[in-house]
Amino acid sequence: MDGLVYRGVKASLELAKLDRPKIRDGEVLMTMQAAALNHRDVWIAKGLYPNLREGIVLGSDGVGTADGGVYIINPNQEWGLQEAYSGPGYTILGMPNHGTFATYLAVPRHRIVEKPSHISTEEAAALPLAGLTAYRALFKKCQLSANEKVLITGIGGGVALFACQFALAKGAQVWVTSGSAQKIDQAKLLGASGGAIYKETDWDRDLKKNIGGFDVIIDGAAGPGFAKLISLARPGARIALYGGTAGEIKQVSPQKIFWKQLQILGSTMGSDKDFSEMVAFVSEYKIRPVIDATFTLSSWQSAFERMDRSEQFGKIVLTLD
Amino acid sequence: MDGLVYRGVKASLELAKLDRPKIRDGEVLMTMQAAALNHRDVWIAKGLYPNLREGIVLGSDGVGTADGGVYIINPNQEWGLQEAYSGPGYTILGMPNHGTFATYLAVPRHRIVEKPSHISTEEAAALPLAGLTAYRALFKKCQLSANEKVLITGIGGGVALFACQFALAKGAQVWVTSGSAQKIDQAKLLGASGGAIYKETDWDRDLKKNIGGFDVIIDGAAGPGFAKLISLARPGARIALYGGTAGEIKQVSPQKIFWKQLQILGSTMGSDKDFSEMVAFVSEYKIRPVIDATFTLSSWQSAFERMDRSEQFGKIVLTLD
Repeated sequence: MDGLVYRGVKASLELAKLDRPKIRDGEVLMTMQAAALNHRDVWIAKGLYPNLREGIVLGSDGVGTADGGVYIINPNQEWGLQEAYSGPGYTILGMPNHGTFATYLAVPRHRIVEKPSHISTEEAAALPLAGLTAYRALFKKCQLSANEKVLITGIGGGVALFACQFALAKGAQVWVTSGSAQKIDQAKLLGASGGAIYKETDWDRDLKKNIGGFDVIIDGAAGPGFAKLISLARPGARIALYGGTAGEIKQVSPQKIFWKQLQILGSTMGSDKDFSEMVAFVSEYKIRPVIDATFTLSSWQSAFERMDRSEQFGKIVLTLD
Repeated sequence: MDGLVYRGVKASLELAKLDRPKIRDGEVLMTMQAAALNHRDVWIAKGLYPNLREGIVLGSDGVGTADGGVYIINPNQEWGLQEAYSGPGYTILGMPNHGTFATYLAVPRHRIVEKPSHISTEEAAALPLAGLTAYRALFKKCQLSANEKVLITGIGGGVALFACQFALAKGAQVWVTSGSAQKIDQAKLLGASGGAIYKETDWDRDLKKNIGGFDVIIDGAAGPGFAKLISLARPGARIALYGGTAGEIKQVSPQKIFWKQLQILGSTMGSDKDFSEMVAFVSEYKIRPVIDATFTLSSWQSAFERMDRSEQFGKIVLTLD
């Protein structure tokens, strides 16, 4: 079979001929149909991820067939016993164990969930990591209610887009930020009320003036801009932080945090329970994941380059069959 | 009657002869017995507090008699309708309305709670602001359970001490930090397991090595040291932030926040429901507030100086009768 494997810091990735995986007790051999990229894969390709092992097939998101059904793979491996946090043995599919960028994958039966019937295999492949992170951040951590006002930073990324779609499905009002005016327009087509270009100085001023304050903020950037999110939060607001692409948080006023009784909630991925609930939510609200572009496995380099340049609006999908 | 009033930024405070307050519908005239100082009073005396009004009697904490009973005054004024945060009309007794540093005070009947019988009037006067803030932070925000490990910074201050006593009563294990080794020893006499002197470089190293990580952290300092608290938090930990005596939060790693699924929870004061629950908790667990020193109202200057120098371990009380 074909698989995209990590060959070490210097050699990076290679599309290799591999033996078809052997299945162990409780596992099923999946014939993979589609997979999707995450920033994690790009960081692994650059050697910028902990615990890298050479010869491992990349990929955390994937959909395949087995026993005549079509299934989404839960990318969690050993989340652990607590709902509130992952245990010490927790890893994500696709490093340090073989992942979805291959034509076959052996998967424990308890980690596959039936594909919702309203979406294609490509759309379903876009769901796992980003959908799980968005679902937990929005509903388990921030406890979003209908009619609340939500701000989502960095729209275009997978988590941000699912957070946007999930929040709209729940009946919330959504505003977004992006470095690109075009992406804000695309988010409006999905139902967002408006947005701001975070590269502009005082990008928060008009939002503050027009909206007043947000009940829920979903952020994957952190960095110096996080202080502006604290200012944009209304009393009692919840801010979920799921990433740190802009680096360390700096110069935050503690007075704003305690006088407004804000909650800053670290969140990434989610429990197996969260994963099942997320897929059920997608089915119930007939949510269609946004696909940015689809590449064949042999064109994997173009896919990785597109993600690395942050050009995408939606998930980048690889077809495997 | 006598009352300690604010006379403006230049004149600061004066012990003045005042007319006895007139009571309005729904109010009761309390004969005050004891009051307690908060940092807030010292900041007001220095003109460092918003919305100052000249001629107002200071004091947020107090106990008095009315209709033959002894009552603690709930210092909240118009908390508002939401449990999660205070409304726009919220103020605290003692500015902008007359407070407890006087021989009489008119108080709405719904804002007095019977003094627990196991404590003195001086001890009861120590409870309101600090007890309310500690109770909400520990139980409503951090959802502290028995057997959890708690770190409380700046022991000696009112909120920190109540948090220590409340957490121990609940069956948690408590560690503390202080600038003074003596205060750490005093906290151990109350039942704390140990502590660290935060003025030392790497004060967190031994705590990290010996304890591993804390489930709950109660902090009133923020500042550059907040990043160390993030490191001392174990996965799933809750950090309540109720003050900012050390200034802005700086250089915090977002990765630690989201990988550990930490919760940073701003909290100050509490709802009227929290206040009633706090007094009931003090009664149930027979908690005795720690009094640092007691002064007569005429010696108010010594009391304010003691608090300003942060010498105290426990609350500083003024007797009024």
